[in-house]
Amino acid sequence: MTASLGQEMHALAARLFPINRSLTGPGVRETLSILQEHLQDLQIYEVKSGTSAFDWEIPNEWSVNDAYVKDETGKKIIDFKTSNLHLMGYSTPVNYLVTREELMKHLHTLPDQPTAIPYVTSYYSEDWGFCVADEDLQNIGDGPFEVYVDSTLGPGVMNYADLIIQGQTDEEILLSTYFCHPSMANNELSGPVVLTFIAKWLKEIPLKDRKYTYRLVMVPETIGSIYYISKNLESLRKVRAGWVLTCIGDERTYSYVPSRDGNTLADRVSKKVLSEIYPDYKTYSWLDRGSDERQYCSPGVDLPVASIMRSKYGEYPEYHTSLDDLSLVTPDGLYGGFVAMQAAIKMLEANAVFKTRVPCEPQLGKRGLYPNTSVKSSGHLVRDQMNVLSYCDGVNDLISIAELCKIEFTVALEIINRLTAADVIERLDL
Amino acid sequence: MTASLGQEMHALAARLFPINRSLTGPGVRETLSILQEHLQDLQIYEVKSGTSAFDWEIPNEWSVNDAYVKDETGKKIIDFKTSNLHLMGYSTPVNYLVTREELMKHLHTLPDQPTAIPYVTSYYSEDWGFCVADEDLQNIGDGPFEVYVDSTLGPGVMNYADLIIQGQTDEEILLSTYFCHPSMANNELSGPVVLTFIAKWLKEIPLKDRKYTYRLVMVPETIGSIYYISKNLESLRKVRAGWVLTCIGDERTYSYVPSRDGNTLADRVSKKVLSEIYPDYKTYSWLDRGSDERQYCSPGVDLPVASIMRSKYGEYPEYHTSLDDLSLVTPDGLYGGFVAMQAAIKMLEANAVFKTRVPCEPQLGKRGLYPNTSVKSSGHLVRDQMNVLSYCDGVNDLISIAELCKIEFTVALEIINRLTAADVIERLDL
Amino acid sequence: MTASLGQEMHALAARLFPINRSLTGPGVRETLSILQEHLQDLQIYEVKSGTSAFDWEIPNEWSVNDAYVKDETGKKIIDFKTSNLHLMGYSTPVNYLVTREELMKHLHTLPDQPTAIPYVTSYYSEDWGFCVADEDLQNIGDGPFEVYVDSTLGPGVMNYADLIIQGQTDEEILLSTYFCHPSMANNELSGPVVLTFIAKWLKEIPLKDRKYTYRLVMVPETIGSIYYISKNLESLRKVRAGWVLTCIGDERTYSYVPSRDGNTLADRVSKKVLSEIYPDYKTYSWLDRGSDERQYCSPGVDLPVASIMRSKYGEYPEYHTSLDDLSLVTPDGLYGGFVAMQAAIKMLEANAVFKTRVPCEPQLGKRGLYPNTSVKSSGHLVRDQMNVLSYCDGVNDLISIAELCKIEFTVALEIINRLTAADVIERLDL
Repeated sequence: MTASLGQEMHALAARLFPINRSLTGPGVRETLSILQEHLQDLQIYEVKSGTSAFDWEIPNEWSVNDAYVKDETGKKIIDFKTSNLHLMGYSTPVNYLVTREELMKHLHTLPDQPTAIPYVTSYYSEDWGFCVADEDLQNIGDGPFEVYVDSTLGPGVMNYADLIIQGQTDEEILLSTYFCHPSMANNELSGPVVLTFIAKWLKEIPLKDRKYTYRLVMVPETIGSIYYISKNLESLRKVRAGWVLTCIGDERTYSYVPSRDGNTLADRVSKKVLSEIYPDYKTYSWLDRGSDERQYCSPGVDLPVASIMRSKYGEYPEYHTSLDDLSLVTPDGLYGGFVAMQAAIKMLEANAVFKTRVPCEPQLGKRGLYPNTSVKSSGHLVRDQMNVLSYCDGVNDLISIAELCKIEFTVALEIINRLTAADVIERLDL
Repeated sequence: MTASLGQEMHALAARLFPINRSLTGPGVRETLSILQEHLQDLQIYEVKSGTSAFDWEIPNEWSVNDAYVKDETGKKIIDFKTSNLHLMGYSTPVNYLVTREELMKHLHTLPDQPTAIPYVTSYYSEDWGFCVADEDLQNIGDGPFEVYVDSTLGPGVMNYADLIIQGQTDEEILLSTYFCHPSMANNELSGPVVLTFIAKWLKEIPLKDRKYTYRLVMVPETIGSIYYISKNLESLRKVRAGWVLTCIGDERTYSYVPSRDGNTLADRVSKKVLSEIYPDYKTYSWLDRGSDERQYCSPGVDLPVASIMRSKYGEYPEYHTSLDDLSLVTPDGLYGGFVAMQAAIKMLEANAVFKTRVPCEPQLGKRGLYPNTSVKSSGHLVRDQMNVLSYCDGVNDLISIAELCKIEFTVALEIINRLTAADVIERLDL
Repeated sequence: MTASLGQEMHALAARLFPINRSLTGPGVRETLSILQEHLQDLQIYEVKSGTSAFDWEIPNEWSVNDAYVKDETGKKIIDFKTSNLHLMGYSTPVNYLVTREELMKHLHTLPDQPTAIPYVTSYYSEDWGFCVADEDLQNIGDGPFEVYVDSTLGPGVMNYADLIIQGQTDEEILLSTYFCHPSMANNELSGPVVLTFIAKWLKEIPLKDRKYTYRLVMVPETIGSIYYISKNLESLRKVRAGWVLTCIGDERTYSYVPSRDGNTLADRVSKKVLSEIYPDYKTYSWLDRGSDERQYCSPGVDLPVASIMRSKYGEYPEYHTSLDDLSLVTPDGLYGGFVAMQAAIKMLEANAVFKTRVPCEPQLGKRGLYPNTSVKSSGHLVRDQMNVLSYCDGVNDLISIAELCKIEFTVALEIINRLTAADVIERLDL
C-alpha cells in the first residue's frame, strides 16, 4: 500500500510536470482536466480577466506557443521547448534582434547554482525575459541575438477548482493548494497531488464517519486564493481548521508554519501530529510564511489555517529552480506528506470533549478494565487509562488530554473508545 | 516539645502497627477506637455492604481468625500471626492440600527485594493468596502443603470517621487520610497519626483565632473517599483548600503532588510552605498522583486538594512491603510532617487581602516604623516593609505578597501585623 | 546639535549645582527661578508648613546661613561654605562647645569611600549633624570643638512647580522629577535638567503633531509628589503613561525600573526604546524602586509610571555622596538621557492600532510598493512590509507590531506611514 500509493502519486506528478502552468492559460486547464480524471466531481470555474477581487483584478490570460533565443549562427541557445522555466512567466511577445548587452539585461541566472535554471515571473508589470543555467551562459557568442517570444497576453479567464465533500455537519475543514508554477515538483506538484489522493481517501470514508465537511481548493497562488475568498467568505466562516498544501513531497524533514493566531485548532493538530511522526520537525514562525495562508489568515479573513510541509519553500536549495524536480520529490516523500495530512484529519475527526458519567472514578474492575489483584506495580499498568479518565472533565479536548497525559493521540483515542464502549464516559462534540 | 511530640506520635503508630486493617473488618474498628481515645468527638460511622456510592458498591466485610501454610512435615512455613502482610488482603476461606506447583500460583514475592514481604490485595475479585519474602521461599520442600485460611468474607459494614471542628466561618479546610493497609508505617499510619495530632492542636486554638471550619476525614482508601464524597458532596463545596495526608513520617525528603487544577489555594500554600522548610522538595505532577485526591479532584467533584508528603508512595523502595516499618517512620520524620501541615494551616488562617487606608505611602516615621535619619543604606533597612506595603492593594493575598517580595510568609505576616496594629492598612477577608 | 544640546544641559546643571537645596527653603526657590528662565510658563506653587497631604504634613521650612566646626585652635575643620553636603539636611541651629566624643556622635562618614562626603538628612526628627570625608577625619585634634549651625527651621512654605503643555486630547503623559538634594549631579540635577530640555523640545512641536497633553512636574521627593497627587489626583487619572526622571546623566549604562503593574504602556515603551538604543540595558524589578514612582504607583493611585535611567540610584558607587558631581554627569550622558526620553515620547505619539481597509493582502505592486518581477529572493525584499501589514488587524498596536515583526519601532513606523499614505490601512486611535 505504502509503496503503491507513493508510486501512484509520483506517476501523477510526472504526468503533470511538463505542462507550462502559470496564473492563467491553457496549462492550467490541462492540469485541472487531468486532476478531474481522479476526482470526477471536481468543480472547475473560470473568471474573466479584469474582474475585481477585493483590492485586486484578475490578470490577463497568458499563453505561449514558442520562445527561444538564437545566436549569430542561428543556433537556438535558449529554447522554451526544452524547459518551460526558460521563459520568464508572463513574458510579452517579442521578435527582436538584440545586442549581447541588451540580451543580458533580460537574462536571469543563479551564479551560485550554475546548473539551475531559475524560476522568474513578472505577473503585474509587462516585460519579457529568459532564465538560464549560469554555466550555459558562459559559452554564448557576441551576438547579435534573435529573441523570439510567441506568447499572447490578453483578456481571457483565470481557472480554479474546488470540491466539497459533505460531512454530517456543515463545519468545514479547508485544504487548499495551488498550481501556478510550471515544471517544479516540490513547490508545485506535491501539493495538488497529495490533495488529490487525500480527496480520494476522504470520499471512501462513509458519511457516518465524517463529521466535518471538507472544502478542497485548487487555485493559482495569491490572486486565486484572494478571488476564492472574495467569492466564498461567508461559507469559509464555517472553517474550523485548514491547511495550505505545498512542498509536501521530498524526504528530508517535516516543517510547520503556524497560522497568524498561532494557537488555532489547525496549529494544535499540526504540532501534535508532527511531534508524533517526526519529533525533530522544524517549527517556523508566522514571519516565515509565504503561501496562501497569507490570505486565509489576513486581517478581516482570519481563518485557522496552518501549513504542514516536508522541506519548506525558501529553505531548500532547489527551491524555485529547475532542480526542484522529480528526483527531489519521491514516492516515499509524497507518501510521508499524505500520511501526515491523513493523521491530521483523523485527529480532527476523533477530537472531542469527554465527560465522565458520574462524579469520582468509575469502578473499572467490574467492567474488566482494571486488574483485580493489586500488586506493587499495578498502579502503573493502568496509569494511562486513569490519567485520561481524570481529564474527561467536559473541558479538555482529546488533543489536550493526550498532551496532558504525555501519550500519543492514538493511544488516548484507544482508551477513550474503550471507556466510551464501557459507558463510563460520554462524548460532547466541540 | 519537638522530641516529645514526635515520640508521642511514634508511640501511637507503634500501638496501631500490628492491627490487621483492610477496607473493612474488626481491624478498622479497633484502629478507629484507639484514635477516638485521642479525639473524643471523632464520629465513627458504618455503612452496609452492598450500599451504592456513585458507580461503586460497599464491599463485603472481611475478617481473619487465622491463616497459614504447613509443609509436608506439618511445620508452619507461612503464618499470618507473625505478619498480617503474609495473607493477601480479602483472601477467601480455604482449607486445601495443594501441590507445590499449585501453591506457587498463589504466592506473591519480590525477587528484587528478597527480605521483603509484599503487600497484595484482591478487593474486587474473590481469590486467596499468601505473600512471602523471596528468601524464605528458597527452602520450602516439595509438598504437598496444607493451606488454611480461616477468614470470613460476607455482608457486614464499612467503617469510617470524621471530625468537624467548627470555626468562625463555614468555609472549610479538608484534611483526609486513610487506614486500610495492615502493618505498614509510612504508607499508612503516618497519615492517621499526624492527622490525629493536627486535630488535637487545632482544638486547642481558641475559636476567635480559627477562621476556617476543619473537616478531618478518616476512610478506607478509594471506596471510603468515594462513599464519603457521595454522602457529603454539598458540604464539601465549602472546602477552600484540602490535603490528603499519607506517607508523611520518614525523614528523607518532602514531596508535593498538585491538585488536578494545579493552581488552587491548596497548591499555592503547599508550594510556599515547602519552599521555605525544604527548598529542595520534590515536585510531582498530577500524573504521579495515587491516593484519595483521585476522588476529591475527579471531574464533577473538583475540590482544591493537594498532597504534602515526606517520601511519596511508589517512590521509595520499602513502599508496599514489610520494610515500610517503624524504623523507616521516626519521631523526627513524623514531627517534620506535622510541622509542614501546621505551617500550611497557619498560612491559610493568616492569609487575606490587605489594603492601605490612604493613597500614597503612609508616613511611617511618625509611627516609629521608619528610621528618621536618612543615610546611604537606610533605603535597604525597611525595604521589606515598604515592599509589602506597596502590594497592600486589595488584590494580592498575603501568599502572593510574600512571593512578590521574595520573603518568607512569616516575615510578611509580621510586617502585616505591625502595619495593621499601626492602623496603616486594613484586612479584607478573601 | 548633539554636542551643543549636551553642553547646554551640562551648563545648566553646573549653574544649579552649588545651590543648597532641600525639601524646602530658599535653595529650592532659587533653583525653580533659574528653571523658569528656560520655561517661562513654568507654574511655581507654595504650600504652607503643616498643611495635610493624605497621611503626611508639609514640614517646616529650613534655611542655612552658615555652619562649621572649629577645632581647639579655632581652625574651621568642617565648613558648610565649601560644600553644602557637610551639613546634615534639616540640622537644627546649635552653638556648642563639645568634646571629641560628643562631636563624633554627630559626624557621618563613609570609611569605605574615604574621599567622599556622604549625603545625610533628618527630615522628620529634629537633630544636627555634619558629614565629612573619612580621610579628613583622621587628622582632627582632641577638641574641644566649636559646633556652629546658623539655620532656621520653622513654619514657612514648600515650593514645587508644574507645566501643562496642552495637546489635541486631554489624555496625559506625566513626566516628574525632583530637586530636593543639594550638590549632587546624577541623582538630582540630571532629572530637572533633562526634563527642562524635553519641555523646550515639546513646546516646539506644533499642536497638530501632539496628541497627548504633557504634565511636567518638579517637586521635592516623596512629600512633594504626595502633596502633588493629593491636589491633582482626579486630573492624574487621565495619565496614559508616565516616567520619573532621575539619574539620567552619566554615560555608563541605561536602566529600567518597571511600574508596580509591570506591563503598562509606560513599561512597554520603556522596554522597546531601551532594547533599541542600548540592548544591554539593566532591568530592575519593582522591588528595586526608590523614587516618586513609589507614590505614583501606590495602591489607590495606581498610575502607569516607570523609570528610564542611566546608572540607577543606589547602584553606582558615587550615589548619595560628594562624588556624584559634574565629572560623573557629562554632556554626552545628559544627551543620551534626553534622547531616550525623546524616543519614548515619539513612540507614544506614533503608537496606534492600524487596520487594513480590505480583507486579504492589498495589491501593493500597483501602488509601487512591491517589486513587479518575482525572483528567488524577492520574498525577502518586502518581508518587513508584508509582516507589518499582516498585523494591521485593529488589535495590535504599533509597539506590538514592531515586536512581533522583530523590527525597530521607527522601521515599523516608516512602513505604516507609507501604507497609510497609500490608503491601504487606516489608523485607529488607542
